[in-house]
Amino acid sequence: MSETPTYTIAHYLFDRLAELGCEHVFGVPGDYNMPFLDVADDHPQLQWVGNANELNAAYAADAYARAKGIGALVTTYGVGELSAINGIAGSFAEYAPVLHIVGAPKASMQSEHQRLHHSLGDGDFDHFHQMHKHVTVASAVITPQNAPAEIDRVLREVVQHSRPGYLLLAPDIAAQEVYRPADPLQGLESHSSPGAVAAFREAAAEMLDGKRVSILADLLVHRLKARDHFDRLVAATEGVPLSTLAWGKSLVDESSARFAGIYAGAASQPHVRECVEDAEVVVCVGVLLNDTTSAGFTQNLDPQKLIDVTPGVSFVGERAFSPLRMADAIDVLTELAEQHPWRGLDSKTLPERAYNGAEDEPIRQDDLWGIVAEYIKPGQSVLADQGTAFFGIATERLPKDAFFIGQPMWGSIGYTLPAALGVAIARPEDRAVLLIGDGSAQLTVQEIGTMLREKVNPIIVLINNNGYTVERAIHGPERGYNDIVAYDWAKLPEVFGGNAENYRALEASTPAELRSALQQAQGDVDKLVLLQVHTKKMDLPVLLRSVARVLQGKPPHGDD
Amino acid sequence: MSETPTYTIAHYLFDRLAELGCEHVFGVPGDYNMPFLDVADDHPQLQWVGNANELNAAYAADAYARAKGIGALVTTYGVGELSAINGIAGSFAEYAPVLHIVGAPKASMQSEHQRLHHSLGDGDFDHFHQMHKHVTVASAVITPQNAPAEIDRVLREVVQHSRPGYLLLAPDIAAQEVYRPADPLQGLESHSSPGAVAAFREAAAEMLDGKRVSILADLLVHRLKARDHFDRLVAATEGVPLSTLAWGKSLVDESSARFAGIYAGAASQPHVRECVEDAEVVVCVGVLLNDTTSAGFTQNLDPQKLIDVTPGVSFVGERAFSPLRMADAIDVLTELAEQHPWRGLDSKTLPERAYNGAEDEPIRQDDLWGIVAEYIKPGQSVLADQGTAFFGIATERLPKDAFFIGQPMWGSIGYTLPAALGVAIARPEDRAVLLIGDGSAQLTVQEIGTMLREKVNPIIVLINNNGYTVERAIHGPERGYNDIVAYDWAKLPEVFGGNAENYRALEASTPAELRSALQQAQGDVDKLVLLQVHTKKMDLPVLLRSVARVLQGKPPHGDD
Repeated sequence: MSETPTYTIAHYLFDRLAELGCEHVFGVPGDYNMPFLDVADDHPQLQWVGNANELNAAYAADAYARAKGIGALVTTYGVGELSAINGIAGSFAEYAPVLHIVGAPKASMQSEHQRLHHSLGDGDFDHFHQMHKHVTVASAVITPQNAPAEIDRVLREVVQHSRPGYLLLAPDIAAQEVYRPADPLQGLESHSSPGAVAAFREAAAEMLDGKRVSILADLLVHRLKARDHFDRLVAATEGVPLSTLAWGKSLVDESSARFAGIYAGAASQPHVRECVEDAEVVVCVGVLLNDTTSAGFTQNLDPQKLIDVTPGVSFVGERAFSPLRMADAIDVLTELAEQHPWRGLDSKTLPERAYNGAEDEPIRQDDLWGIVAEYIKPGQSVLADQGTAFFGIATERLPKDAFFIGQPMWGSIGYTLPAALGVAIARPEDRAVLLIGDGSAQLTVQEIGTMLREKVNPIIVLINNNGYTVERAIHGPERGYNDIVAYDWAKLPEVFGGNAENYRALEASTPAELRSALQQAQGDVDKLVLLQVHTKKMDLPVLLRSVARVLQGKPPHGDD
Repeated sequence: MSETPTYTIAHYLFDRLAELGCEHVFGVPGDYNMPFLDVADDHPQLQWVGNANELNAAYAADAYARAKGIGALVTTYGVGELSAINGIAGSFAEYAPVLHIVGAPKASMQSEHQRLHHSLGDGDFDHFHQMHKHVTVASAVITPQNAPAEIDRVLREVVQHSRPGYLLLAPDIAAQEVYRPADPLQGLESHSSPGAVAAFREAAAEMLDGKRVSILADLLVHRLKARDHFDRLVAATEGVPLSTLAWGKSLVDESSARFAGIYAGAASQPHVRECVEDAEVVVCVGVLLNDTTSAGFTQNLDPQKLIDVTPGVSFVGERAFSPLRMADAIDVLTELAEQHPWRGLDSKTLPERAYNGAEDEPIRQDDLWGIVAEYIKPGQSVLADQGTAFFGIATERLPKDAFFIGQPMWGSIGYTLPAALGVAIARPEDRAVLLIGDGSAQLTVQEIGTMLREKVNPIIVLINNNGYTVERAIHGPERGYNDIVAYDWAKLPEVFGGNAENYRALEASTPAELRSALQQAQGDVDKLVLLQVHTKKMDLPVLLRSVARVLQGKPPHGDD
């Protein structure tokens, strides 16, 4: 007698994830999730990637989701899900579409309100779901009655808003039989009102008429899947300068002459500031300013001269148009530009990148990041941890099709190390280049073991300056609490499974050494490369100096 | 002109902590907490202990609080506090009195609802406080108006209930001037009603009259500071057998002949089960059964024959007496025993610990933990991670005054590694012996760096069996998701600051090698010792086999 495999709620869930383009599931096994982990493990289109801990799993899933448009992690009740919750909150703040699937105690045991392990012992099993409601766009406790509907609803919200969702799933529920979905998941996109589209077109045409225009874009263009629409707008607006916030870095081709640079309010490089602030109309697309990317909200952007395209509503000056999908608003602007070409600014000479330090003297942060950027190849994933790495690389030009990952809104240090694992798995053709300081890397360092096991071979540029440099810039430069334990970074991957075959250690202290090491690192395509760069404890990149000055009420550029 | 240092809200807070016996503050610096971190750093009675990440800080503070009666950690807003929150939830489930102090954005910026880094970007700064309400006994957002009152209230609740509290403190608030407290913090203890005391005495005397008695104690005796009272009860009840749940391990002198062993419901060793279940009256003190410690609630304890002393209420059979402080109820029982000596059970012969494996053959979990226990010295701290280590050591006798730390209620794997740091700092005279598996240690491994920096020199007995053995026992013994990355454990501390002066690596695969290694480890008092014990992948200690069998509906003892 042949046995027909049962189609269960767990199958339904993982089929839906696969349908949306998810090919990997991150996480840590636990007694409350293992029965349905088997379904993911056996799924023909899904691969299980076990992480060293749950926070690292959430970070990896976040970066994976940024690249693939959907990501997922599985944790266990209480201990696992709360270990991951900072990562989920980061996905919320940073618009990453991650589904957090949590294994719960059997529904039959929950209903008896027993004092079960991994619970608070009070018989209430809804606490952690309630906590997740603060940091997710949708959540559900799956029951036999609601399973397909709630799985679909949560996934729909996750994809539509590009923010995390939460499903609490007990193994006895997960094993219940259901039918396969009839159709692919519907309703993944919002819609515009034709009236709003027409009115926006008229108002935008009027404001743009004959004016000198600048385009300022940010992360949400990418997150809300309007990237292709935006690329057509860029193609239709030749001569108009382009810039992004640091959050949206790599959204436009930074190797193009049209790219003016990263706009950062009063802390911007003078050239970028002119290109943006001197325009008569600034077309903002998907821009969300925060204190870090705007140097404390020092942007000088008169609302009266803005066309501001945001997810569900667009503005022309102070007039709002909604419901208006970002992609539709961008398409309207493209049409307008095709009908009446926009004027750019008077031609500005792009400043050349200049290096100030001698090639064989100790390297300075002002030179370091430009050299790093020179060696990054088109298409590679570039991750910069929220420290000197982020502020350092922000102002450098990345090559065409580079995929940048930073976290200036949530700013959880250590995030980018597991994120490099996640993006490398999502984009296996393009090597990941991770830029991180020693103070950040220590928080999540064990994920290097997973990188080696998964053979994803990133280049890790580790800034070794013995501690929390960003914190020193802000407060307590000589306080012991900003020092960290000195690791032997060169040997570190060896204890996590590294050997001469799969790992190379490199070091650099001068510009010349850094160039040579980066050259070698890019050549070692079959190895994880950990390149330590030694810098001075209080040396900061120029943008971080400017941001710190602005936040202290000083002018952005100058000596301290 | 001499400047009088200002006395601020931050001074008030850290003075109160010091007054309660806290001498160390754990945590990670961040821009929102550094201004008041300086006050802790400069405090004459407090020492700052920086951790590798916030979850590890919470775990360290939890173990410190178990030993000292109060512990504290400082994290930063959003990213830091949510990284720590699983540790705080563990402190709640496990009754550890930890204060979580979180640095918030300046109150002046919060009130403008700005999109600040480390926030969700929605202008609402109360999310993470609300999340903490689920896992703390008291919480407050500190304002200039409420500061002394709310700091006092939260600390009072933390101490009285032995559970965590939360304070959200913005640096501009922390710097506001206040006056020093006039008196030490009042109201740390609850009170009994004289009527309840008298009625309980009468009912207990009646039930005890001439009956054969057994005493079963658990963790809350220690956590609610009734240990001294309980010791007097033990002294007054000679001949009465004593046992504890695994949660309360080390509460009674396990080297004494009166100690019957660890009671674990149907999974108990037969001798313990008889000593507890055959008694005519069982005096339960501070007992909270959970699924893990009771082998799925298989205890055979007829409520009609129980005297059950719990924190605020005691029971004689089904009659409840409250308000009745645990310590007062214990004192009543001691008086009764002094007036009319209790009868113990008919004399039971204590089974001798026998080893089954040959001294030079591969070691088995059935022998391993008995040998480990033989080499632990009186007074040492013993930590067992919630895996084979916990179930393995649970049934072995620890020496007098050993201080045991496990986490069978919350069960967050990896907890005990940072906890070993915390307890070693709290009990510097008594070495910490950490028992942990490789699958657990990877989650929190970087805290070994902090151990080396702080020179706390624990003995780490690391069971190397390539993965999650407890998970394998429950589900998926051959599934890849229960394997982990193979670390080079012997070298691992070297990358975190270990060297020949401060670190020794040892290995053992047989009983003889283990004895020799433990001997050497106890001799190396000035070193962190990492002793790897190699066991077979599917080898389990006897209690874990029994618990797994009971949870699968089989009889507790027997072959699979």
